[in-house]
Amino acid sequence: METPLIDALKKHLKQRPFSLHVPGHKNGEFFHPSMSDFSSVFTYDLTELEGLDDLHAPTGVIQEAQQAVSRLYNTKESLFLVGGTTVGNIAMMYGLFEPGDTIFIQRNSHKSIFHAVQIADLTPALLTPEFDAKTGLAVGLTLETLKEAINLYPEAKGLVLTYPNYYGSSLNINQLISYAKQQGLLVLVDEAHAPHYCLGMPFPPSALEQGADITVQSAHKMLPALTMSSFLHMSNKLPDSMQQRVKEALTMFQSSSPSYLLMASLDGARAYVESLDKKKINEIMAGIQQVKEELALIKQIQVVEWDESYLLDPLKVTIRTTTKLSGFELQKIFYKHCLYTELADDKHVLLVFGLGKSQLPMEVIRNLAKDLSQYEVLDQEFNKKPISFSRRVKKLELTAKQIRSLRKKRILLEEAIGYVAAEAIIPYPPGVPIVLPGEKLDESVISEIQTLKRAGARFQSEKEVTDVLVIDSEEENE
Amino acid sequence: METPLIDALKKHLKQRPFSLHVPGHKNGEFFHPSMSDFSSVFTYDLTELEGLDDLHAPTGVIQEAQQAVSRLYNTKESLFLVGGTTVGNIAMMYGLFEPGDTIFIQRNSHKSIFHAVQIADLTPALLTPEFDAKTGLAVGLTLETLKEAINLYPEAKGLVLTYPNYYGSSLNINQLISYAKQQGLLVLVDEAHAPHYCLGMPFPPSALEQGADITVQSAHKMLPALTMSSFLHMSNKLPDSMQQRVKEALTMFQSSSPSYLLMASLDGARAYVESLDKKKINEIMAGIQQVKEELALIKQIQVVEWDESYLLDPLKVTIRTTTKLSGFELQKIFYKHCLYTELADDKHVLLVFGLGKSQLPMEVIRNLAKDLSQYEVLDQEFNKKPISFSRRVKKLELTAKQIRSLRKKRILLEEAIGYVAAEAIIPYPPGVPIVLPGEKLDESVISEIQTLKRAGARFQSEKEVTDVLVIDSEEENE
Ligand SMILES: Cc1ncc(COP(=O)(O)O)c(C=O)c1O
Ligand SMILES: Cc1ncc(COP(=O)(O)O)c(C=O)c1O
Repeated sequence: METPLIDALKKHLKQRPFSLHVPGHKNGEFFHPSMSDFSSVFTYDLTELEGLDDLHAPTGVIQEAQQAVSRLYNTKESLFLVGGTTVGNIAMMYGLFEPGDTIFIQRNSHKSIFHAVQIADLTPALLTPEFDAKTGLAVGLTLETLKEAINLYPEAKGLVLTYPNYYGSSLNINQLISYAKQQGLLVLVDEAHAPHYCLGMPFPPSALEQGADITVQSAHKMLPALTMSSFLHMSNKLPDSMQQRVKEALTMFQSSSPSYLLMASLDGARAYVESLDKKKINEIMAGIQQVKEELALIKQIQVVEWDESYLLDPLKVTIRTTTKLSGFELQKIFYKHCLYTELADDKHVLLVFGLGKSQLPMEVIRNLAKDLSQYEVLDQEFNKKPISFSRRVKKLELTAKQIRSLRKKRILLEEAIGYVAAEAIIPYPPGVPIVLPGEKLDESVISEIQTLKRAGARFQSEKEVTDVLVIDSEEENE
Repeated sequence: METPLIDALKKHLKQRPFSLHVPGHKNGEFFHPSMSDFSSVFTYDLTELEGLDDLHAPTGVIQEAQQAVSRLYNTKESLFLVGGTTVGNIAMMYGLFEPGDTIFIQRNSHKSIFHAVQIADLTPALLTPEFDAKTGLAVGLTLETLKEAINLYPEAKGLVLTYPNYYGSSLNINQLISYAKQQGLLVLVDEAHAPHYCLGMPFPPSALEQGADITVQSAHKMLPALTMSSFLHMSNKLPDSMQQRVKEALTMFQSSSPSYLLMASLDGARAYVESLDKKKINEIMAGIQQVKEELALIKQIQVVEWDESYLLDPLKVTIRTTTKLSGFELQKIFYKHCLYTELADDKHVLLVFGLGKSQLPMEVIRNLAKDLSQYEVLDQEFNKKPISFSRRVKKLELTAKQIRSLRKKRILLEEAIGYVAAEAIIPYPPGVPIVLPGEKLDESVISEIQTLKRAGARFQSEKEVTDVLVIDSEEENE
């Protein structure tokens, strides 16, 4: 069977079953009229009935569907996630480490990794990544940094990497992983943005191919799957006991009623990837190339050409402003033309293409060009000074638990230098924290926040970031 | 606006937007052909775009949609959950308590409550519920048990109740909650099965109406919402600081890409509930009554008549076998007639009706009756001896952390009496653990497992429950 789970759902529906079970829409017998477009999927929103297996203890069609994923990705075991890569990151870290373990974490990890650190009660040692000279964006860790970290904290148990970054541009992690493995570290990779790297050229190698022990991928981000559908992959070398512990952790953090819609979409997404041949991929690439060429004609923007040494995801196109417009302002102009882009930072806008031929008419880009033509192109260089974190490798001043028990106060950002933060500061997207709870605030970090604010960044907190919650230092000194 | 979130999604789609963002299906531009029935909802599977707000920091249409829920349920604040009641249970317990806190937990809580205990590193004191004399099913805690618990563990911080039980039959929790509040306990209620109690008569009062501080409801179970969609409600008396901590916890445990499909279905479900008037509810009740009457004609089953003192959910109908068939076997016969029921236990089958007129033709029930007529009706009384837990209030022998560090071994169930379990044993559904990790195994619990096994229960573990993982007692004695 090509799509075992979807087929089983269809088979169930073909009997015209009567639902005397949850969910409450009873196979779509009734629902609010505003949801009429959902009517055909309500019927697929089923539960653990005979023949439909059980995600938390699969022995039937869900197991088959997961095994098909495992074959495609060449893993020991691959699992369906219905809580996004977030739940996979939490489960792998909670499952594989013990409370108190020192773990190396790439500094620019997604907030879900830092949440996992807190939930699993780990001691993070933060490793500062390299920043691309042109864009100021973090592209990965160097071997040198890892060596320094191991020197400082030889007791560390694991290394948590993010590969690739949001913009699809990364350093090779091959050597880094080999060295970490040699040193006895478990290597966990948040591969949220790269479920499609299994396709091979023109896509970079996956983290598993480069030696990782366990990876998590947001299928929903890059494959045609529904949002919150992800994969967790365990490498052939992961010991059985660890495999088991990750699975137990997933049972804890995922709903006991996992959505069959999301699971079906993972089954369909895997089948879709398998259906792609060289010819189709070439067509997709040609479509993206055409858009890039059209964009290249617009003087007010630049399509970023990354350093040749990076591994690049051809589905990601980063646009750079060459006018006084910030990335955020530029994105607003894209929106006006119904071009809904993935994210903006102070200087860039990110376009994410999919694994199908782009339907974007060139007409739309020409209209965008006309609109942008009013802005004067500045001829200054845009090279951006990256945030200069004070140390390449550091532990946090305080753990989450310590922070919880200490007295805190809210003070102005400008006055926070030297204080220990009691909350994270996270521009969103990409949701990568600039400040972590327990981290001492220094000048460079405060000035980075001010720059982002001026450029129009959105921060994920209930209030504008004008102040920050810090540890009341008198108490800290007690 | 009646459905602010759904309306905003429709408005976005009306512009015919081009997706240069995640998810990877690009508003349904491409997907595997097996998913053609999903095509109309792919377009609604959107992300945090302009005008579509952000679940993790809502200020627009998601906030409005949540506020509409809050008005309906008369709460301080109501939140959309996309990880089921599981994530709500975890977040409320993680957010409201400190590691090590002693918390009173109703013994027959759903496994998600026990997982939350482990994640939040709490010390549970287990309170044994009352069992219904006729069915042997747990119906709730008595005030006496709570008093005994407070006497034994005056340091406890909170009380976690489940209301109603899976079968929709419960003791009144009014007095219990008042007493707990008087004694300074926080009262958290897993109200997974009762999002519809807000409708008032003929439904019982909700836990919030009875004085609870915080409740979680699986909207997907009883309202026309998609699976994994739940509500978390905070009562008007919950202090701001606690409200804040629960929200922070949710940000940690829920995906940073919450599904707009699920959120939209919560918006629609709330609007659906508001659209129900007395006349519609009477029609629904009449439909269920008709089915019950038809079932009552079948000698081989009995529609359970609960004790008059219980609060009863009229959408739940419990059927009891009067033949040698177990509940599990009876359920299989229902299945043969395409009657997909919610769950079976050794003696019962549970039917769950919805908030719409049941489409079940009486014809189908008559066919079921014919099929069942071959079984001899036994005239013995079926009253079931409930599990007799050895103590009404008890703490576990070991915490999750201790278990993790001790040596374990796997032994036969029959030989496990006196050992401390290192794993849970959970018949599913309803997913209520019979044995908890850290609990000393006694004869009554082992015999209950044997009874369930003989009757054909399914246990949620990778292997048949013939053996159990226990603490190697030599090590324990070291
Ligand atoms: C690098 C990275 N990791 C993890 C996540 C979280 O994944 P999800 O949204 O699938 O839960 C994201 C989401 O943006 C991400 O960018
Ligand atoms: C009493 C109870 N609480 C919590 C849950 C978990 O809820 P959900 O499946 O929505 O995650 C269930 C599910 O069956 C339940 O019965």
